[in-house]
Amino acid sequence: MLPTPFEAGTGHAGSVVNIEIVTIGDELLLGFTVDSNAAYIARCLAVIGVAVSRRATVGDSVDDITDAAGDALERTGGVVTTGGLGPTNDDRTKPAIAALFGRDLRLHEPTLERMKAGWIARGLPGEFPAANVSQAMMPDGAVILENAHGTAPGIWLEDDRGRWVAMLPGVPREMRRMLEDQLIPLLRARGGAKAAAIVSRTLRTSGVPESRIADLVGRIELPQGVDLAYLPGWEGVDLRLTARGIGEESVSAVLTEAAGRLIPHLGDSVYGEGDEDMAVHILQALRGAGWTAAVAESCTGGMLGMRLTAIPGSSDVVRGGIIAYDNEVKVGQLMVSEQSLAEHGAVSEEVAGEMAAGARKALGASVGVAITGIAGPGGATDDKPVGTVCIAVETPLRAASRTVRLHGDRDEIRRRATQAALVLLRKHLRVQVAEPGAERSRA
Amino acid sequence: MLPTPFEAGTGHAGSVVNIEIVTIGDELLLGFTVDSNAAYIARCLAVIGVAVSRRATVGDSVDDITDAAGDALERTGGVVTTGGLGPTNDDRTKPAIAALFGRDLRLHEPTLERMKAGWIARGLPGEFPAANVSQAMMPDGAVILENAHGTAPGIWLEDDRGRWVAMLPGVPREMRRMLEDQLIPLLRARGGAKAAAIVSRTLRTSGVPESRIADLVGRIELPQGVDLAYLPGWEGVDLRLTARGIGEESVSAVLTEAAGRLIPHLGDSVYGEGDEDMAVHILQALRGAGWTAAVAESCTGGMLGMRLTAIPGSSDVVRGGIIAYDNEVKVGQLMVSEQSLAEHGAVSEEVAGEMAAGARKALGASVGVAITGIAGPGGATDDKPVGTVCIAVETPLRAASRTVRLHGDRDEIRRRATQAALVLLRKHLRVQVAEPGAERSRA
Repeated sequence: MLPTPFEAGTGHAGSVVNIEIVTIGDELLLGFTVDSNAAYIARCLAVIGVAVSRRATVGDSVDDITDAAGDALERTGGVVTTGGLGPTNDDRTKPAIAALFGRDLRLHEPTLERMKAGWIARGLPGEFPAANVSQAMMPDGAVILENAHGTAPGIWLEDDRGRWVAMLPGVPREMRRMLEDQLIPLLRARGGAKAAAIVSRTLRTSGVPESRIADLVGRIELPQGVDLAYLPGWEGVDLRLTARGIGEESVSAVLTEAAGRLIPHLGDSVYGEGDEDMAVHILQALRGAGWTAAVAESCTGGMLGMRLTAIPGSSDVVRGGIIAYDNEVKVGQLMVSEQSLAEHGAVSEEVAGEMAAGARKALGASVGVAITGIAGPGGATDDKPVGTVCIAVETPLRAASRTVRLHGDRDEIRRRATQAALVLLRKHLRVQVAEPGAERSRA
Repeated sequence: MLPTPFEAGTGHAGSVVNIEIVTIGDELLLGFTVDSNAAYIARCLAVIGVAVSRRATVGDSVDDITDAAGDALERTGGVVTTGGLGPTNDDRTKPAIAALFGRDLRLHEPTLERMKAGWIARGLPGEFPAANVSQAMMPDGAVILENAHGTAPGIWLEDDRGRWVAMLPGVPREMRRMLEDQLIPLLRARGGAKAAAIVSRTLRTSGVPESRIADLVGRIELPQGVDLAYLPGWEGVDLRLTARGIGEESVSAVLTEAAGRLIPHLGDSVYGEGDEDMAVHILQALRGAGWTAAVAESCTGGMLGMRLTAIPGSSDVVRGGIIAYDNEVKVGQLMVSEQSLAEHGAVSEEVAGEMAAGARKALGASVGVAITGIAGPGGATDDKPVGTVCIAVETPLRAASRTVRLHGDRDEIRRRATQAALVLLRKHLRVQVAEPGAERSRA
């Protein structure tokens, strides 16, 4: 069930407006495109108290669009469409919605002028094509929503009963900008002070299984009307808190209260919020300690280096690394001993530890982080099944190695192994940054 | 428009069955989950001549599910639902569809027994929970679809007019297996010999812009009824050919004919089909030449190594690499000269060439591949804007460096840079494998 509005008396009552989404395009029905627009729209609208109560996807057919949008309008009085606004024959949204409202399409001169000027400004060759003129045809009474990233303008159409359809383009970049810059302010203005905001806040945890997280926080009493959902993924378990009420700020305050009750029970496992990457926090901790880092990777083949360097500005603390996929590279570049390889095998805490030490030394970094494991599908032995991964960290203050058993396919195991190495690294950076000795090493 | 059936006389006429999909779950409406199930179902069903003519998403409400599935059944006579089959209070699909068909829910003993046996087999603690008993409640006349990957069985329900609803779980892994192993054979048996198959075939190209591809193949006449779509992405431009007719084999033959007309005009840019990864072909070419490879990466930070090692069994030809994010690592590990760095800068064809040579030498590999560039958002200079990337390859036979200008955000630029390096490597491997000298080097 969608959350119901808070009861009067909690100070958070507010009305939620329901709308529906209709996404348009044969590509969506054929399954060659996954519809990410609908989820994006739902998340953005929730914040201004607009809830999506249903959505439909139809092909590029005037009848189907009119039918689906008509049913949706009947139920809720507000519909957002995406797609079907381009210049080709496949684009049927405008005629379909114009028919639904009983409006004629007419050439809209200012739009045509803007499109022609854009054609010239972008240095496109020849005359403005006749096929594109259809994009300047607008239903009577249309409010034009400008498209900052493309040619097809969006349209807001409203009838005398206040029922409306907002037509947005299907290209995600164009749709997102138009939604944020134009449709949301328009809906916010209509909603006035009575609109309820639906606000979410996500705590990110890593290194602790979902069942243990549930044991830790499952019985904690949260403020009235706050919902808690567990969302496990390869990075860890996200905890999503959701609440609604009048005014984004006051609902956010309720969520802050809720998060404040959970966090002490979660301890070190909480590393961030929203869609924050743990790598960001690690780079900050490295900077705080005045340290640099190097990686040594076997089964992940560069994924750990990729994660750390995905963050803009990482070059001040990430020196680089060695991808030691072959054992000869472990020996030659990372100074892993032949004896450790023979005695313990390439997937062992001993070798992981030597790899971390070797990366640190070879690249002249303060910290070395290593991963060696069996990502599968081949390579398993009786005592080391697929998913066995050894990770290690060495800093100026201490060294640690650890074995983890990860599940999933090759890609998942590699992702989880990378995340496990980051978790171990983060733990060591937290302890060390908090120690006076680590602070001194900054000088 | 969905493609219309071939005209009689082409030998490919056939009837397409339309169905609708209803996906169920508050998570989908709230936008926290993107619905990938619907696209997957559509692609699988197309092959057996079943087209998705519309889809709807509703929340966990009995009324909404009954309403949406009822409308869909009215229009097409066949509906696939996903989600809402679990043991919690949020799972409402069974009662909703049972109500739609006017059937009662009754405890289905064989299902309960199987669930209890599974509970014990998996070593789960304590008694089988009462909450899970609801999963063994089945509508009268239900055909059970077994769940190989989870506890919730799927259900096929049909009325005396032959109208049906197939209820599948929402967890993608469970849904996919049930769809492929059980629902598709069931629908195929119903469809009989008259069903039209909708078949697609995708040619993957890389290294050539979409506009150039369109110049090369846009005017080529394809067999009647074959549609061609250009799908550009960061890996390159995919060309999707789609056709329909009776019998998957005969439609596939038409697509083979169509692909045969396109391929000669696309030359070397075609590297594979479907969702094949270029890395797979590169590993094969390396094996064919008896060569090994090492990478040297600056701005991609390990992504090239990750791409190559993502392929199972890559360890026989990939030795590893150096992530030389810091210039000191370029000098220390890859033997790049201080002079080249000073004269040409880290992002230069000279330095890229020295990195490729250094990786080859340091790791004792036959082939070295290097990437150095400006992924942004920082780091740009007047003559080297964000997106400037230099790539290089060195093999036992020759060396090449090249500069490319890539667009997109940091992540896209890194992906495109990695792909560009793979394109350059593939080109050199193709030439060299075809030469007698390269063949000899295998010994």
